[in-house]
Amino acid sequence: MSDPNNKSSRPPASEVPKAVINRLSLYLREMQRLVRDGKETTSSSELGGLLGFTDAQVRKDLAYFGQFGHPGIGYRCDELVQAVQRILGTDQTWPVALVGSGNLGRALLGYKGFLQQGFHIVAAFDIDPTKVGGAIEGVRIDSLDALREVVREKGIRIGIIAVPSQAAQAAANSLVEAGVDGIVNFAPVTISLPDTVSLVGVDLAMELEQIAFSVANRVHSR
Amino acid sequence: MSDPNNKSSRPPASEVPKAVINRLSLYLREMQRLVRDGKETTSSSELGGLLGFTDAQVRKDLAYFGQFGHPGIGYRCDELVQAVQRILGTDQTWPVALVGSGNLGRALLGYKGFLQQGFHIVAAFDIDPTKVGGAIEGVRIDSLDALREVVREKGIRIGIIAVPSQAAQAAANSLVEAGVDGIVNFAPVTISLPDTVSLVGVDLAMELEQIAFSVANRVHSR
Repeated sequence: MSDPNNKSSRPPASEVPKAVINRLSLYLREMQRLVRDGKETTSSSELGGLLGFTDAQVRKDLAYFGQFGHPGIGYRCDELVQAVQRILGTDQTWPVALVGSGNLGRALLGYKGFLQQGFHIVAAFDIDPTKVGGAIEGVRIDSLDALREVVREKGIRIGIIAVPSQAAQAAANSLVEAGVDGIVNFAPVTISLPDTVSLVGVDLAMELEQIAFSVANRVHSR
Repeated sequence: MSDPNNKSSRPPASEVPKAVINRLSLYLREMQRLVRDGKETTSSSELGGLLGFTDAQVRKDLAYFGQFGHPGIGYRCDELVQAVQRILGTDQTWPVALVGSGNLGRALLGYKGFLQQGFHIVAAFDIDPTKVGGAIEGVRIDSLDALREVVREKGIRIGIIAVPSQAAQAAANSLVEAGVDGIVNFAPVTISLPDTVSLVGVDLAMELEQIAFSVANRVHSR
């Protein structure tokens, strides 16, 4: 495997299509599953087959970041997991700030999948004075007024928005002013951010649409 | 535009790659946004540009389902919205059953994005006797024992799992026994289903990984 830190011949991250980064997450999950199942090696065709992609697609996606296969062996599962985590930046644990401690915020605070993948919600904020001072899943709920200070203190660069739609833009503005570099928005509404801050919107209805298509078209016959 | 119901020359739904269906959801969201913004027509290059895909990709994806453009005009936004909804099966509202009424279940019951896209959680279930009989967002919480009867009564074909990881497989089994055709699993754990039932797993950490990549690589420089 070539040195993954040798980036000289590779395109800068800004030129990697978003869809490729999205597939990296999918590859990572499958590889993590293979490792859990005790598999030591895999191939681009096996990995692609598990996800419904061609082997060429898998190889092309990974080639953006280096050369990860071994001749005659394929990919070593644990090595590829670590390489993809290094690419995604999740070989470290990211401290995350959560804005909104209603039902969705509580659910996210209790979501075990975040810590598994390198994200730790270390601070939570609400504008409701009856919630401020309380704690959920061991995380204290602070006033939004404290956001800037806590973000600086805890070195937080990623924020999650889990407030009602009508409060989402204000929450985003507060996170930007507090200095985060990226925001994941769970409110079902479009928000605007300065170009300097990365944004991903989570649309929980999309997976339902995928299922609706399968069911409506009986892709799996009964 | 050719008759979207004339499927003779098109591949069966089972042969359409999952990634294409996933992109249909993305196209639909952008088109709905364009309609809200008062735009009447668009093009494959504009639509692709908004999402970071090539115009060829957009045309190829839509070509699985028919011919939707008009010479010299491009796509009529509202017409394409309706066409994609018809393809996805969301030109109707789907009654949905929710299993699990903890924080995540409550959040999903209050999530406005579902109804906007054609999904209505009409029934919710829990094994906790202290929750059964209560109501959240106007939806009564029933005992899991009533699942089969309610699914039949309300014509429910899609179920959502929002229980803790260790209870997810049992919830899935109950939904399958009750007769649903598709399941969306929000628990951060892999579940197994018979081939006759469609499954989509929601991994809330994936969007955080996308943001981590941007932030770690400073795709948006500050």
